[in-house]
Amino acid sequence: MEIRFTKMQGAGNDFVVLDETAGPLGLRADQYRFLADRHFGVGADQILTVRPAPAAGIDFEYIIHNADGGEVEQCGNGARCFARFVYDKGLTGKKAIRVKTKKGVIAPELMPDGRVTVNMGQPRLDPAEVPFDTSGLTPVVQHHAKKWPVAVDDQAQTATVLVVPVSMGNPHGVLLVDDVDTAPVLALGPLLELHPRFPERVNVGFLQVQDAQHVRLRVYERGVGETLACGTGACAAVVAGIEQGLLQSPVDVQTRGGLLTIAWTGDANDPVMMTGPATTVFEGRITIPD
Amino acid sequence: MEIRFTKMQGAGNDFVVLDETAGPLGLRADQYRFLADRHFGVGADQILTVRPAPAAGIDFEYIIHNADGGEVEQCGNGARCFARFVYDKGLTGKKAIRVKTKKGVIAPELMPDGRVTVNMGQPRLDPAEVPFDTSGLTPVVQHHAKKWPVAVDDQAQTATVLVVPVSMGNPHGVLLVDDVDTAPVLALGPLLELHPRFPERVNVGFLQVQDAQHVRLRVYERGVGETLACGTGACAAVVAGIEQGLLQSPVDVQTRGGLLTIAWTGDANDPVMMTGPATTVFEGRITIPD
Repeated sequence: MEIRFTKMQGAGNDFVVLDETAGPLGLRADQYRFLADRHFGVGADQILTVRPAPAAGIDFEYIIHNADGGEVEQCGNGARCFARFVYDKGLTGKKAIRVKTKKGVIAPELMPDGRVTVNMGQPRLDPAEVPFDTSGLTPVVQHHAKKWPVAVDDQAQTATVLVVPVSMGNPHGVLLVDDVDTAPVLALGPLLELHPRFPERVNVGFLQVQDAQHVRLRVYERGVGETLACGTGACAAVVAGIEQGLLQSPVDVQTRGGLLTIAWTGDANDPVMMTGPATTVFEGRITIPD
Repeated sequence: MEIRFTKMQGAGNDFVVLDETAGPLGLRADQYRFLADRHFGVGADQILTVRPAPAAGIDFEYIIHNADGGEVEQCGNGARCFARFVYDKGLTGKKAIRVKTKKGVIAPELMPDGRVTVNMGQPRLDPAEVPFDTSGLTPVVQHHAKKWPVAVDDQAQTATVLVVPVSMGNPHGVLLVDDVDTAPVLALGPLLELHPRFPERVNVGFLQVQDAQHVRLRVYERGVGETLACGTGACAAVVAGIEQGLLQSPVDVQTRGGLLTIAWTGDANDPVMMTGPATTVFEGRITIPD
């Protein structure tokens, strides 16, 4: 079966986008895996599928498959590409759309500069919700934030680092560093990712504050290693920086994959808003094995 | 500038193929790098460009750029895709073509089963030509082959492995193993790649003989690590197997990226012929940054 697809990327995450508004393609898990394969298929972190509106007040349904072929709940970088795609392809004339996902309705919005803003949900700052085990630890309090001293042992030495735990639906630990280029991301990342104080493991953010509205960030992603961009990691880092009184919303976050702008009121009842790029890379036609 | 391209793969190496028979695209190194980038561009090991015949008796000129944007001399897996491309696109009606490369003229040929055969040149078995330093070593002689005992030290232990050095224009060291699935490729590969007896470093082949015409192979590539397929590695492994009296031409080589068939007369004046797959993955259109 030959299908048409669009390859897109947003700040270092890349996507194959499929249009099912004219009817289902009926792909199986192994066919999604084939599309995502970087040598034998198109190559992508995820496959995004556009389906027609399932109900009134909703514009589209948004289905996401990981490179392993399994369906997953959400991805901030993917939602931006989804919104860009349906507008650029003329599937809608609206710049603000409501989209049904497996997790709930999201409302990405195209900005005048071509970037897209997505609501990333409320941050959670209670260590138990991350989860992070505080037992026996005394935090260093800075402004509204509690920074927890975590002892990390590698075979050479023991060191203590100050970590701010933040949940964006997934667990993050944020550390301040003087310079992301020289920060020990590949040495400390795995030690913290697997640290017993994070029972569900953790995404580790290394945050360099340049000024109150400009930061640089590297993220060691749970189960993946260092990645070009991690949308929830950028949100968690800015929340941790605002809580420590170091940052003022909105904040430009320079990641290895591109620039993300994160806005948050500082009220934990308010969502974190992420604005970032969504770019069409190429258009293609591929024959999928039956 | 928008250009059309074809994405192809052959036994695990993948290529973006560009057609310049109607005129040059005039791409710069950074534009080749963009095309090869797996997140921000199309993604490929190499970019192959088809140019018109530069002289009588030649069908095409074949230009190869690596993912770093630099021009390189040759690639066996790429030459198969090149031959498949010019035939499938109707740029020639010939199944056997003569192609000018930076290194010389090559003559890939389409087989009736859709695979492509490429002349990979003569093997060189003199250790000095690999180069491999034999000083102070006594080889184990098996049939026509000399197997050299190489001591490898890691921090835990010292071991001696028997290596057959072969040059296919680039250096190879071939080891026999009982089972490629359990062979210590990632432990031994880097120790041999950087071993002082191979002053220009070496591609390390782990060869499992199933019968005289069927082998399995894993290759730890010089400067790269383990790869899905290494065309010259398959040639070197079969030459080493034939020299040891273990194999009979032609030999099917199962690599992680696909099946290659290697033929060689056993005479070092004759070239090694490699037959393997060349597959179009998809067709695309991309806008290249100016």
